[in-house]
Formats: sequence, C-alpha cells, structure tokens
Amino acid sequence: LDAAAMAQTRELQARLTKPAGSLGELEELSVRLSGLAALSPPPMLEPAHLAIFAGDHGVHAQGVTPWPQEVTAQMVANFLAGGAAVNALARQTGVAVTVVDVGVAADVPGADGLVSAKVRAGTRDMTVEPAMTRPEALAALEVGIATANALVDGGARVLLTGDMGIANTTASAAVISAFTGRDPGVVTGYGTGIDAPTHRRKVEVIERALALHGPAWGGDPHTDPVAVLAAVGGLEHAALAGFILGAAARRVPVILDGVIAAAAALTAAALAPSSRDAMIAGHESVEPGASVALSQLELNPLLSLGLRLGEGTGAVLAYPVVAGSVRVLHEMATFDSAGVASKDEHKQ
Amino acid sequence: LDAAAMAQTRELQARLTKPAGSLGELEELSVRLSGLAALSPPPMLEPAHLAIFAGDHGVHAQGVTPWPQEVTAQMVANFLAGGAAVNALARQTGVAVTVVDVGVAADVPGADGLVSAKVRAGTRDMTVEPAMTRPEALAALEVGIATANALVDGGARVLLTGDMGIANTTASAAVISAFTGRDPGVVTGYGTGIDAPTHRRKVEVIERALALHGPAWGGDPHTDPVAVLAAVGGLEHAALAGFILGAAARRVPVILDGVIAAAAALTAAALAPSSRDAMIAGHESVEPGASVALSQLELNPLLSLGLRLGEGTGAVLAYPVVAGSVRVLHEMATFDSAGVASKDEHKQ
Repeated sequence: LDAAAMAQTRELQARLTKPAGSLGELEELSVRLSGLAALSPPPMLEPAHLAIFAGDHGVHAQGVTPWPQEVTAQMVANFLAGGAAVNALARQTGVAVTVVDVGVAADVPGADGLVSAKVRAGTRDMTVEPAMTRPEALAALEVGIATANALVDGGARVLLTGDMGIANTTASAAVISAFTGRDPGVVTGYGTGIDAPTHRRKVEVIERALALHGPAWGGDPHTDPVAVLAAVGGLEHAALAGFILGAAARRVPVILDGVIAAAAALTAAALAPSSRDAMIAGHESVEPGASVALSQLELNPLLSLGLRLGEGTGAVLAYPVVAGSVRVLHEMATFDSAGVASKDEHKQ
Repeated sequence: LDAAAMAQTRELQARLTKPAGSLGELEELSVRLSGLAALSPPPMLEPAHLAIFAGDHGVHAQGVTPWPQEVTAQMVANFLAGGAAVNALARQTGVAVTVVDVGVAADVPGADGLVSAKVRAGTRDMTVEPAMTRPEALAALEVGIATANALVDGGARVLLTGDMGIANTTASAAVISAFTGRDPGVVTGYGTGIDAPTHRRKVEVIERALALHGPAWGGDPHTDPVAVLAAVGGLEHAALAGFILGAAARRVPVILDGVIAAAAALTAAALAPSSRDAMIAGHESVEPGASVALSQLELNPLLSLGLRLGEGTGAVLAYPVVAGSVRVLHEMATFDSAGVASKDEHKQ
C-alpha cells in the first residue's frame, strides 16, 4: 500500500462537502484503494468483472451433501443462459460475468461467456488420497492468474470472485481448518442446507481428511500452502487463489464472495501475504468458516444479509458500495469549489 | 399486505434455481414487497427516485451544532449541481434525484431538479414556542404527499428519502424521544460531529423543549401526532412523513435513510399504522435515535456501514439490494425450466 497516495486521499476526504468521517466505512475503503493503486484518487472501479470458477469434488462420494454432482454442470449452463441468482444481481449492479470451467466432472460445451480450462474432471476423494496432485493444483492456480490478467487486460478495474461446485463447502472448511488451526467442527457449516446427521458426517469426513494429510505439512501449513490446497482443496479454490494473486499483482482490487472465496483468500495470503492488500470482503456469509477466515485475514465484511448461496452473489451486491467509495472522490465538490461554509469550530 | 401474493412469492422462491432460503434477507424482503404490491412477483423497482427535503431549524439559535445555518441552502445548490455525496452514490446505483425546498431559511433560486414548496423560511425555536403551527405542519405534510404522488405518476416504482437541514438531528431526537418515550440522552447522538459540551447542550435543549410542549399531547403522543410534529419537528420531517404516507397509499415501497427519516417514519406510523408496510430501513445510522426508532417500528436495517451523513446516502446504497430482491423473481430460472436437478432428500 502506497502511504503517500493514502495520505493524499485522507486529505481529499477532509475537503469534500460532508462532515469528516460521515461516510463511515466507505472512507477507509477509499483510502486503502488509493494505497493499492498508488494513486489518489484511485481509478474509478468500472468496468467490473465477476469470474465464476466451477469444479467438482471427489469427496462428494462421502455423502456430504444431498445435491447430485450433475448440478454443477447444470448450474454452469444456467449461468451461461443468464438465469441464476448471480446473473440477475449482476445485471442490477452492472457487473459482467465470465464462467471458467476449471474442473467440472461433466463435459461442458463451449459457449459465449465460458472459458474452458478444465485441469481435470473433478478432484479425487480427499478421504482416500490427495484431492489433487501438486502439478494439478499449480495448473489450476495458473488458470486463475491467467483469468485475472485477461480480464484486467480487457479493461476491468475491479474483479469479483464467484464459484460453483457441489460439495465445495466441505473442501472450504477443510482448507480453513488447516490454515487457521481451528477444529473442523467450528468452521463447518450447513452449506446449502443439510440436516444434522449430514452435518455430523461432513465434520467427520473433514477430520479424517486432515488426519490423513496433515503430516504432509507438519505443524505449519504456511511452509507449504500448495500442499494444503492439493490435499484438501478444490480446483475452483486453487483457481480463485490464483485469481486473487493475479488481481493483487496488477494492483486491482478483488471483492471476495463467501466461504469458498475466504478459503482461497487464506491460501493466497499464505503464498503471498501482501495479496491481502487487494482483498475486500464483500459480505458476511452464514457459513462459520467464512467469519473465521476473514478474521484471520483481518478483513471486515461490508454487507451482512444472511446470504449462503455462493456464485458471487454477495460480492456483486457489495460492488456498488466499493465503487461508490471511489466515485465520491472523483465526483464530489469540495467546500471551496462549491462555496459551502465549513464547520465553525469557534461556535462550538 | 396481501397474503395471497406473499404465499405465491414464497412458493416461487422455492422453485428458483438456488437452495431454499439461501438469499437470506432478500427473500423475506421480496415476500413483503409482494404483499405491498398485492402482486407476485411485484413490479421491478425501477425507475427509482430520491427526494431530498430541505428545511431550516429555529433551534439552531441554541448552539446545537457548529455548522452555520447558511449551509442548508449552500448544500441545496450543491445537490442541484450534482456535487454532493448523495449525487455521486445515486449515479452509482441508478437513482434519480429531486430536491424539495420545504423550509430553507434563505431564498433558493429556481433550478432544474428543484421543487419550490417552501411552507416557511425555517421553523421557530422549539425551546421558546412550537416549531410550527398546526396548519404549517399540515401544509408540509401535504408537500410530501404531493411529491410522492408526482414521482409515482411520473413512473417511479420505488421512492427513497433524503434530507438536508442544519440542526435537524436535534429535531429528530426530540420527535423520537416523544414517540418512543425514551430519554433525550438515550436518543441524541453526535450528528455530523459535535464535541461533548455541544452534545450536553443538545440533550438539555431537547429536554427543555419536551418539558415545554409535552403537556400539549398529555401522556400519549399517538393521540395527536401532528401536535408532536408541530411542536418539535422540522418542515422536512413533516414533508418526509407525508412522503412516506403518500408512497404507502400508492403501494410503492419507500427506502428510509437515517435518523431524520426514522423520526418521520415514527410520525407516519402514528398517523397511519399500516404505512409501516411500505417502509424499508436502508441502513443502520450511527445516530442512536435511528436504532431506537427502527426497533419500535420493527424494521431491520439492510446495511450497516457506519454512515452518519444523511442526504439519502444510506437509502441510495441500499437500493440495489432492494431492487435485486425483486429482480431475481423476474429473471431467475426455475429448477424445471433450467433442467437443474433439485436436492435429493433421500440421499441425506
């Protein structure tokens, strides 16, 4: 973060026609975005682009969700046809959508808005063997980095994370447990809506997977974050971590969606701690793992609407707040320019 | 609220391609909006229109704020020139802006986007006499009703509240204290940023005004809400209460901004309890009176961003969430139409 640009934006905030500090979280956000861009004011955050990374999960075989695996591919088709929740909300807030097949089990036919970059047709079952080999995890990371670069080259000034993958809250909880050291029981939620027996099984599955693979990274997951990702992550988690790293490298902010993004963000921060500077937590997911991860990353979510859908819905809803925080710097008058009297301290 | 339309929207929500309940607060909001419109799905919430009601306050003479009174008129000019925070944020979220002079002390020259409807040039000092006569308060209420009707006739499908008036957090706290029975010390905040001695004076000014006028409504402010409004309210509070009543009468939702809107909403609900059905609390203001008022109205604010600016900024930022909650009903595919398998309860 560039300290000079941040100081300049703080000084500009004080001259804009509003009481000091009255825009609350938007003011600090605009200062951080200035630091990221090393420019005051930072560039307007438009166009905005959401990438939805889709992948399947071998751990689905363990009965961690009542949804059939085919739903991943079916929802990819739904995104491409514009009929999912995230499509409607993205139209509301003016965000473009790209779908990236980084690991869907089924074949996904080519279509407008689809990037076909399948690394493999779903991960392996983490309770039996590592979900990915190290080369596979790295290849998926590269897909995410390349996606970020392509979108920024295409003009995007802010990126948003989206995801689709039946069973991916299981992989997310495993990754979050590994990186935070918190028990699986604490970071595992009810995902898209499971019953209590399924939840118990889900926690037990994650415990088994971490017991099996934990020795690979000894006591410290930060010594080899890719080992954690390969063992218990998903192809979309790897791609999302790369997407975040790619955005940070280009000094472009990335708005995180929910628990899948939070797991990927922990991975990205473990690989490159400074990537945290580019991360904005869009919302507070209902999933407990999301809060644990954001807290470790010291990120405060902007919205809290009880969402637990994924797809990027929370990031898309947060976008106007983030973009608005920068827009005021560009478009507001100053006390001088507007001829508005400022607070008279003598009269207090 | 129309129960049949609400039931129909609940049933539609269950068929859309997402896990049941996963859109959190947006789902219940869409159900309530269906009840208000008596239609499922309710109409898309566009175009959206913000009305900023501006007025001055005689109680300014009591030293409740360090800002000079001229700032009200200067900020009106700033709104009309498009240079205030609310203008920038309204451009971000696609909301049109109208300014209504219902009681600015200074002359406000005519301009595009301005409605000149001055009832009087600022209120009287509530510590000395009632801020308004009853006819003045009713005239200002009528200005708000007429504004709502004109905007809805012009096509608006959702209205947003905005306000400008130096010292209007003092009038707001007095109105909120009267309608909720909570002590002035509990509902009075730091407004746009005052120091501790000014805050003590502000509380004491409100206590004096309520002691002077309280006998006019005996023990129960709900028997004569206009008496409360006239005694300690502002012209913009009266107009906002009318604006809310006008929206409710047209079955059009109205997104409330901060503490000034909350005081007006209490007044509207005292006059016509069913007007509450049309109210949506846009955000949780830093002002303590706002939370007290919303809690009495049983309204949950959508956003919590530490805002304390007013103007309508919080309402404008909440607009995409509200509009998005309805848009998903119109634009999302159902499990059947998209060929997406639903959750298999047998596998759980």
